Amino acid sequence: MPTAAMVEYDQAAPEVRAIYDDIMRTKSIDFVPNFWKTLASHPPLLARVWRGLDDSMQPGALDVLTKEMVALAVSATNGCTYCIRSHTAAARKLGMTDAMLGELMAVVGTFNQTNRLADGYQVEVDPQLMRATEGGGAAARPAPVELKPVERKPSKVKKKHRAAKA
Amino acid sequence: MPTAAMVEYDQAAPEVRAIYDDIMRTKSIDFVPNFWKTLASHPPLLARVWRGLDDSMQPGALDVLTKEMVALAVSATNGCTYCIRSHTAAARKLGMTDAMLGELMAVVGTFNQTNRLADGYQVEVDPQLMRATEGGGAAARPAPVELKPVERKPSKVKKKHRAAKA
Amino acid sequence: MPTAAMVEYDQAAPEVRAIYDDIMRTKSIDFVPNFWKTLASHPPLLARVWRGLDDSMQPGALDVLTKEMVALAVSATNGCTYCIRSHTAAARKLGMTDAMLGELMAVVGTFNQTNRLADGYQVEVDPQLMRATEGGGAAARPAPVELKPVERKPSKVKKKHRAAKA
Amino acid sequence: MPTAAMVEYDQAAPEVRAIYDDIMRTKSIDFVPNFWKTLASHPPLLARVWRGLDDSMQPGALDVLTKEMVALAVSATNGCTYCIRSHTAAARKLGMTDAMLGELMAVVGTFNQTNRLADGYQVEVDPQLMRATEGGGAAARPAPVELKPVERKPSKVKKKHRAAKA
Amino acid sequence: MPTAAMVEYDQAAPEVRAIYDDIMRTKSIDFVPNFWKTLASHPPLLARVWRGLDDSMQPGALDVLTKEMVALAVSATNGCTYCIRSHTAAARKLGMTDAMLGELMAVVGTFNQTNRLADGYQVEVDPQLMRATEGGGAAARPAPVELKPVERKPSKVKKKHRAAKA
Amino acid sequence: MPTAAMVEYDQAAPEVRAIYDDIMRTKSIDFVPNFWKTLASHPPLLARVWRGLDDSMQPGALDVLTKEMVALAVSATNGCTYCIRSHTAAARKLGMTDAMLGELMAVVGTFNQTNRLADGYQVEVDPQLMRATEGGGAAARPAPVELKPVERKPSKVKKKHRAAKA
Repeated sequence: MPTAAMVEYDQAAPEVRAIYDDIMRTKSIDFVPNFWKTLASHPPLLARVWRGLDDSMQPGALDVLTKEMVALAVSATNGCTYCIRSHTAAARKLGMTDAMLGELMAVVGTFNQTNRLADGYQVEVDPQLMRATEGGGAAARPAPVELKPVERKPSKVKKKHRAAKA
Repeated sequence: MPTAAMVEYDQAAPEVRAIYDDIMRTKSIDFVPNFWKTLASHPPLLARVWRGLDDSMQPGALDVLTKEMVALAVSATNGCTYCIRSHTAAARKLGMTDAMLGELMAVVGTFNQTNRLADGYQVEVDPQLMRATEGGGAAARPAPVELKPVERKPSKVKKKHRAAKA
Repeated sequence: MPTAAMVEYDQAAPEVRAIYDDIMRTKSIDFVPNFWKTLASHPPLLARVWRGLDDSMQPGALDVLTKEMVALAVSATNGCTYCIRSHTAAARKLGMTDAMLGELMAVVGTFNQTNRLADGYQVEVDPQLMRATEGGGAAARPAPVELKPVERKPSKVKKKHRAAKA
Repeated sequence: MPTAAMVEYDQAAPEVRAIYDDIMRTKSIDFVPNFWKTLASHPPLLARVWRGLDDSMQPGALDVLTKEMVALAVSATNGCTYCIRSHTAAARKLGMTDAMLGELMAVVGTFNQTNRLADGYQVEVDPQLMRATEGGGAAARPAPVELKPVERKPSKVKKKHRAAKA
Repeated sequence: MPTAAMVEYDQAAPEVRAIYDDIMRTKSIDFVPNFWKTLASHPPLLARVWRGLDDSMQPGALDVLTKEMVALAVSATNGCTYCIRSHTAAARKLGMTDAMLGELMAVVGTFNQTNRLADGYQVEVDPQLMRATEGGGAAARPAPVELKPVERKPSKVKKKHRAAKA
Repeated sequence: MPTAAMVEYDQAAPEVRAIYDDIMRTKSIDFVPNFWKTLASHPPLLARVWRGLDDSMQPGALDVLTKEMVALAVSATNGCTYCIRSHTAAARKLGMTDAMLGELMAVVGTFNQTNRLADGYQVEVDPQLMRATEGGGAAARPAPVELKPVERKPSKVKKKHRAAKA
């Protein structure tokens, strides 16, 4: 059991219950995960974290599956068991195959390695990298529109997510 | 300067120079980044890390831009300055806009928050999440092929990357 | 310079400028910190992060100085330079002396040490600690009110913060 | 079981037993936690860590409950299960309510988020923040005593702790 | 169970089985650890990670026991349960006593403490330390060979490891 | 400049100066590093941290160079710039060559990678690893003395360190 008493659906105050309903509808699940039942021990925290998470996970310039995989990458880097299980479940539901998970983990592993090498040797940022990224680099400066963003079709998942919210 | 002497292109042994050439060709850049010139102070490390990174970054089930953004998410979570600059530059080159970066950072920020809340409250994994993920969950078990992976068209970037390697 | 173009006050859209004004008023400062000018490169991120931070920092069961010192402890543990400078400045303004900073750092250092020892030796949670914390332990169970919360007078700082918001 | 044999009270050498007694007296508990029984597998480590921790946790410019909550914030940021349970138990005993825990976790979550955003975007420290913190800023420079530290009454907890040590 | 289906020895494809055989021979164990059976869910990851790890752990300028203890120090700092158990087992097998483990943990604990203090106070690198380490410092510059590397006899362990690979 | 005023040797109180002298003698350096001058802003912190560090770095079951390299591995994993420079300088002085540093970084990089993979896939500890490590495993249980610790001659460095302290 967590270190604060979880608030079950039946005992929840109306405004907490409304958030629980929104969580289940948005995630297309039929139970309230322990994470949210625990945050409900301090209702303002529940409300704020859910609102922030829900906003961040809306499909936009990135699709929902990509966002869930980034969330999994972050959680693996931090070693958070609950979060790894939760985002793996969500990404699987959205279609993450073993190969996609394998490639994701390969990237997570590789760059956790290089991160420590760059720091461990105290490598300095190349002037070229600095110029390419300062203030957004060429991509962000008011230049003629030579930049071609990668085309990313709205996936079915995105639509499904949008529908779930509507 | 880093804590080991960087090996410049002109002083490099032939096998180191071959790796330098491969790095510049693969990344479509005309200089050898400090990171690799530093690893060259211990040639087996240079060879192994480059090989591993190059393998991990091949387009496959995930495209290269997604991989660079995951690399950036990992580097931001670890706070590695060199790596953040490097992967931001690479992702920008592949078309990452301010909106894509903003959504990526939103996800990175949000889940660094929830990771610490899940741990801080010692939330237990729900049995439903456990079942959905154990051994890959439904997605990985030898079931009839009801699973529909998200369609992801090979982007132009992917082709460009492949061409660069050929 | 950061990796996205900062939005200066004069160029900011009205809704961004409104947030900038709120930040300066709440923090009693006469400039917009780089952090917020950078988040403004993706306005929804600016709005969400500021709202969340502002909510979290309201005086309540904990006073504002305690919250700033906890923020500093978190930032020191994560090694975030910007954040360490920012929360040190805020805590100093609220009255943190060298002795308070010294004791705070002593606690941060000590428990970064013990955290790694507990993990490094794989120490198991004592049944006594488990019982004392599950579901909030005795403190959270519906027991007769024998619990005496520590008395904490609202500090002057708290009032000042409240005034700043009004 | 941990990765070294725990030393039980009855088998402990006199100098280890003396430390065990001091731990139980200081913490007002009637058992030796697994953490300390494990460190006793290497007695100099037990002695040094206990001495350092005991010194750091003395009430001084900060009270004991604040220190336990900072310890919990650090442990949550590091994801150390044992430590989270241990400091939650200690803080609960000193009067931490669900609301105090909720606000603490809100701060921990919020700044783990902003820490990664500040790093992820590579935000530079504002000159104003630098000036306000260098060498302690105005607070630390030998100026006339215009600084008003926040008033913090010694709590009952502090006295209790002191009594326990006497 | 992990989040991908483990590949058991009997079901493994020949190239996976060859790696399993190499793992067991190199580590002198008669079972395939869960870690490798899980990576085999994405065979290229298994191949790459094993190859990289095996290369890194060859005895060379450092002996194998030292490397296992460094691996344990890294794993304790990251709080990775599986890895802590795994490297503790390997180091114990190579002769790590309780005293060696105790001193290792003392170093891990101490420097996790000082790391956070140096960052928390934003201490600047002394010019002397900078000069002593830039580009490898005196140790790495093309000077007459006044440098005397510490003598480190190849341990028995090293020979055993070499034999195992032959 | 750090966030607290550094205490210079000439202004230091006698007990602080005594510690400064001990630091310079022990490390065979002729300046007081910024780290210690900063901790001196809160003298009890200076005293405690120096005492703990000095104890941990005594040669014992591990030699001083091994300890400095472990300290460097920890600092690289945490990304602490000051600490990386400081322990690199110390290890170089004790004879760490480019090859030794390269192998050390290879181990640090490799296991930062595998740490995240083990967590990211939620791999469970094998029963064999559990048995081999619980309570110290075979190495720690009161068995007949079949255990042969690796022979490690006291290096010249160790003697030098001892002499410096005498």
